[in-house]
Amino acid sequence: MMKTVVVRNIPRGPQKAIDALRVAGVATVHEAMGRSGLMQPYMRPIYAGACIAGTAVTALAAPGDNWMLHVAVEQCRANDVLVVGLMGDNTDGMIGDLISTSLKMRGVKGCVIDAGCRDVRILTEMGFPVWSRAISARGTVKETVGNVNLPVVCAGALVNPGDVIVADDDGVVVVPFADIEKVAALALQRTEKEDKSRLRYEAGELVLDVAGMRPGLAARGLVYVDSINDL
Amino acid sequence: MMKTVVVRNIPRGPQKAIDALRVAGVATVHEAMGRSGLMQPYMRPIYAGACIAGTAVTALAAPGDNWMLHVAVEQCRANDVLVVGLMGDNTDGMIGDLISTSLKMRGVKGCVIDAGCRDVRILTEMGFPVWSRAISARGTVKETVGNVNLPVVCAGALVNPGDVIVADDDGVVVVPFADIEKVAALALQRTEKEDKSRLRYEAGELVLDVAGMRPGLAARGLVYVDSINDL
Amino acid sequence: MMKTVVVRNIPRGPQKAIDALRVAGVATVHEAMGRSGLMQPYMRPIYAGACIAGTAVTALAAPGDNWMLHVAVEQCRANDVLVVGLMGDNTDGMIGDLISTSLKMRGVKGCVIDAGCRDVRILTEMGFPVWSRAISARGTVKETVGNVNLPVVCAGALVNPGDVIVADDDGVVVVPFADIEKVAALALQRTEKEDKSRLRYEAGELVLDVAGMRPGLAARGLVYVDSINDL
Amino acid sequence: MMKTVVVRNIPRGPQKAIDALRVAGVATVHEAMGRSGLMQPYMRPIYAGACIAGTAVTALAAPGDNWMLHVAVEQCRANDVLVVGLMGDNTDGMIGDLISTSLKMRGVKGCVIDAGCRDVRILTEMGFPVWSRAISARGTVKETVGNVNLPVVCAGALVNPGDVIVADDDGVVVVPFADIEKVAALALQRTEKEDKSRLRYEAGELVLDVAGMRPGLAARGLVYVDSINDL
Amino acid sequence: MMKTVVVRNIPRGPQKAIDALRVAGVATVHEAMGRSGLMQPYMRPIYAGACIAGTAVTALAAPGDNWMLHVAVEQCRANDVLVVGLMGDNTDGMIGDLISTSLKMRGVKGCVIDAGCRDVRILTEMGFPVWSRAISARGTVKETVGNVNLPVVCAGALVNPGDVIVADDDGVVVVPFADIEKVAALALQRTEKEDKSRLRYEAGELVLDVAGMRPGLAARGLVYVDSINDL
Amino acid sequence: MMKTVVVRNIPRGPQKAIDALRVAGVATVHEAMGRSGLMQPYMRPIYAGACIAGTAVTALAAPGDNWMLHVAVEQCRANDVLVVGLMGDNTDGMIGDLISTSLKMRGVKGCVIDAGCRDVRILTEMGFPVWSRAISARGTVKETVGNVNLPVVCAGALVNPGDVIVADDDGVVVVPFADIEKVAALALQRTEKEDKSRLRYEAGELVLDVAGMRPGLAARGLVYVDSINDL
Repeated sequence: MMKTVVVRNIPRGPQKAIDALRVAGVATVHEAMGRSGLMQPYMRPIYAGACIAGTAVTALAAPGDNWMLHVAVEQCRANDVLVVGLMGDNTDGMIGDLISTSLKMRGVKGCVIDAGCRDVRILTEMGFPVWSRAISARGTVKETVGNVNLPVVCAGALVNPGDVIVADDDGVVVVPFADIEKVAALALQRTEKEDKSRLRYEAGELVLDVAGMRPGLAARGLVYVDSINDL
Repeated sequence: MMKTVVVRNIPRGPQKAIDALRVAGVATVHEAMGRSGLMQPYMRPIYAGACIAGTAVTALAAPGDNWMLHVAVEQCRANDVLVVGLMGDNTDGMIGDLISTSLKMRGVKGCVIDAGCRDVRILTEMGFPVWSRAISARGTVKETVGNVNLPVVCAGALVNPGDVIVADDDGVVVVPFADIEKVAALALQRTEKEDKSRLRYEAGELVLDVAGMRPGLAARGLVYVDSINDL
Repeated sequence: MMKTVVVRNIPRGPQKAIDALRVAGVATVHEAMGRSGLMQPYMRPIYAGACIAGTAVTALAAPGDNWMLHVAVEQCRANDVLVVGLMGDNTDGMIGDLISTSLKMRGVKGCVIDAGCRDVRILTEMGFPVWSRAISARGTVKETVGNVNLPVVCAGALVNPGDVIVADDDGVVVVPFADIEKVAALALQRTEKEDKSRLRYEAGELVLDVAGMRPGLAARGLVYVDSINDL
Repeated sequence: MMKTVVVRNIPRGPQKAIDALRVAGVATVHEAMGRSGLMQPYMRPIYAGACIAGTAVTALAAPGDNWMLHVAVEQCRANDVLVVGLMGDNTDGMIGDLISTSLKMRGVKGCVIDAGCRDVRILTEMGFPVWSRAISARGTVKETVGNVNLPVVCAGALVNPGDVIVADDDGVVVVPFADIEKVAALALQRTEKEDKSRLRYEAGELVLDVAGMRPGLAARGLVYVDSINDL
Repeated sequence: MMKTVVVRNIPRGPQKAIDALRVAGVATVHEAMGRSGLMQPYMRPIYAGACIAGTAVTALAAPGDNWMLHVAVEQCRANDVLVVGLMGDNTDGMIGDLISTSLKMRGVKGCVIDAGCRDVRILTEMGFPVWSRAISARGTVKETVGNVNLPVVCAGALVNPGDVIVADDDGVVVVPFADIEKVAALALQRTEKEDKSRLRYEAGELVLDVAGMRPGLAARGLVYVDSINDL
Repeated sequence: MMKTVVVRNIPRGPQKAIDALRVAGVATVHEAMGRSGLMQPYMRPIYAGACIAGTAVTALAAPGDNWMLHVAVEQCRANDVLVVGLMGDNTDGMIGDLISTSLKMRGVKGCVIDAGCRDVRILTEMGFPVWSRAISARGTVKETVGNVNLPVVCAGALVNPGDVIVADDDGVVVVPFADIEKVAALALQRTEKEDKSRLRYEAGELVLDVAGMRPGLAARGLVYVDSINDL
């Protein structure tokens, strides 16, 4: 049974760890979490180069109906990210420049919505990034209530209010509230390790050697021949 | 952080209510829940006519890797339904005749998997229904562990172990454990009401009149003309 | 500007020609029309083997809102086909057993809808065929008015009320009202011609010879070699 | 029966209203039309930032065959937009730099095509925008005739020659010829209203209050709780 | 550079091994080949239950143009399977009852085509199975030559003339000519092994035990708890 | 049977012809090859404006497993292009900044992969272009061996090691090794011809006249009328 409730208070994680997650980026955070927490790859930013992390304020909305987004705005604070799940498949432009203006005014970092976005030129000029499954001018009604700040499924991922959302050009990942600091630390380790690896690769070393892959490959049956004629 | 855990004991709801949910069918149960709980419509049965309800045993598996399905089999009992969520998009044939044989032997009603199914002719002959996003012969590896009987997202719906799964030709719906009896009662009411309505419609009455829609339509601006030339 | 109008009277073509179109089938009618008039191939019947032709009663509905289908039912007569276009992309189950019961009671041959269908097992048992883009249990609201018996786009094809709809396992084709008899005659000719051809092919003759294709192929540069080694 | 005709003369609306529609943009025009007239959201511009409005010159072309585009070029004048519907699904690159050069030379504002586009780098450099369903280098033949300046379905929308096309980053909308001035006026009103609203939102007011939504939400059952523990 | 050639003679493998591959079925053959050779899962049979194996006669055709299918018919013999690759994406009904009549008359087992199929009801009645990416009534032209019996890509798989095609409800797999007997033998072994396993699973044994998976799972970190509260 | 082999030596074509193919661009090269050799249009560059040509080093990888990419890096030289085919459908981010760093360091021009790409912002900053079917942060395992420098199917096209890959904003085309110089010459001719045509079109001439299309159009039945009322 769907609940029609707004929860006013949600946990918010330590800003320092949230910032560290943003710096690490989606790919690294996803790896640090044991390759979990990613939304589906159909979620794309409306413009290139945006990179955000913030606390998830969640909303569940009916397809083509953005009433609950307006309700959710009031629950958002600075450094939050609005995450909108849908009760059914939808590509309508459920967020546009007016809602985005309110969100930006409140210090919200961006919006992740499993539906469409519109007014993308204005949003690009405003510097308010949205990750969505579509871009569409189709407008919405305000007929059906859903909820705000209950757990929601968005683009295949479960999001609890208070989780951290990290989003960049590679997609969107969800860090559970309880794991924020742990994942931030692991992501930092991973970044440092990759930075060192990059130096070695830039110097011409091969992953095959750096990671000692050759014996494993041979064990799995990989053989080398000089020419196609040697097969 | 993904947990690699198997939970042995899950709640199982009252069989009488579960049976009532099966009789009501997916569309009616979904309505009784306030039009919530449906999986995405890309989930289709491998053969027409199957209609099941049972307790969800959940598994989270890596794409193209059915190791956790084998682990989950052991946790399944009679009247359960195995629900498999995926860590990433996948259409491989992650369930086939061998796993299905084990499941059927244990009295499991069917399987719902957000990936592919294979051996569909044998499964059809066995009478073991699977709802999946694809049919594919592509086989799987056994390399990555996930978990069993933790909450899982499957085809856009959150499934907790112990929830009831209802699946038929119209799709798949999830009834939360706490709501099983309430939804079963509401679904029964709805079925009875629809049965009465059907008799009136079969007698030629119109929904427009039965439901008193005409004033509302006029209020929204609907007008009638005799001919296209009257516009 | 969208009109919110119901047109009560529409033209209906000669039944004999409509029956002939049904017998010819979608593929032949489409060819007889100069390969035009087809809806997109994503429109699929909910069960195999249905084959209908009838006069189009048209409706334009909002996504996820089947109010106008109820309005359209009243405008349908025996041998009609209800055609539903959508104001936006949608896969919800906008037609189910109740509307279908009313339609069937009035002698309507079937429904073609650019959205989803539900209660497909019941509809199959009733023998009421629906061509749709999806099967989905998701229910609908009744909030937005559209129109009935105005021209509508359905699955990429323009349908005017009074046009003939032919639908079978191969898809759905629209025959403009003014062309009904002409297309029926051409389709009959084509069927007779194909029946003769089929006899020749069953006797082992090749289309290459029957249709005299060899010179044209050679003129376009097609050459024959005995073996891949001769290239 | 498909007509193979070119209509030389089409109506063209008042330039001032057409310019006003361009300034309003697709989302606002679509709202001003009662949320109708939009093409499917799969239609995307080949580069960001283009924003055009102009009179539709229509063409119907066979899949993978751009012969009728060449025919249509001759019928285009300054401030027109070429709209191409297809007889069947297609993603081939049916418009490229040569046709675009001719169109631009004649003062055409852009092209909307329910197929693919190629030479997108050159078109971007030329500043000739195309909205298409795909980008593809695949070339075309010139074998099949269609028609020019008859009504055509493009990306799910009916376009009559003389209608105004408005296209920007949010998609493509069609304004019927008879409604051009009316829609332009309504769009202007809407823009002015939204500009006022935006000022209020920028000042921190909430839509919930500005639009008086709170009683309606409560009437639909929305309740507020302080914490998830209060449920 | 595309070759416009028909190769008259192709190798054909031993019938006994080909029959064994058909009996083994697509899933088992694919496994026996080291999980390779499968076409994409979008290739679906037009009716359930068909199961064929035969020598590939290959054709490369232009989208929406079935001229080369007519050319290929002449090169087909008893127990062959016609495999059609396309020069570009297409869903048109490129094979229907006339070509199928000719093929069936010659003893051809079925057709695999990376485009659409039509006349599916007649083909079903004839018992001539087709695996295709779509069902569509859309007809074709005869304008462009391609080739017959050269290597072709079909649904993501490379097919050389003479390879064996195995197709059933699970999809389509390609067995290279050189590997026919080896794969047939491996598939038989695999079938026998699976038959033995099935008996054990039917008797209630678990794959976890039969395959000795428990230590490996533990080594990868899988732990068991009695209840969700134990986490 | 899949081979698990790395071939060390492959042919590499004349650099001058390869450079000429790059200058001509994908659309022109595809036309020069008789409209063949294109990959599917779902292959898109991760950033606009890249334009490369180089010798194909091929790899076949398992879905979600980039082990063979690491193996392939060692086989790449300056001016090569790494082409990765997949054993099954996949959208995971199988290439990212580390592999790209190694490739760029070796002088590789870019990568074409029938799966996903990640770290796209870094790759954009590095100026290392990738054409892929998806962008996804999802990471990969290193469990399954495939092969390097054997023929591979990538996005529907057969690629032999040593073939030339041309890729730009319009897509990706494959030029067989044996045809490199011939296609380069034909592409140059075509470019020169199109440059001349462009001048004429810029001067206002119509393709209808330049190419003498009017008689052919009339022969196919195209007629002109002054007004829609003349039909």
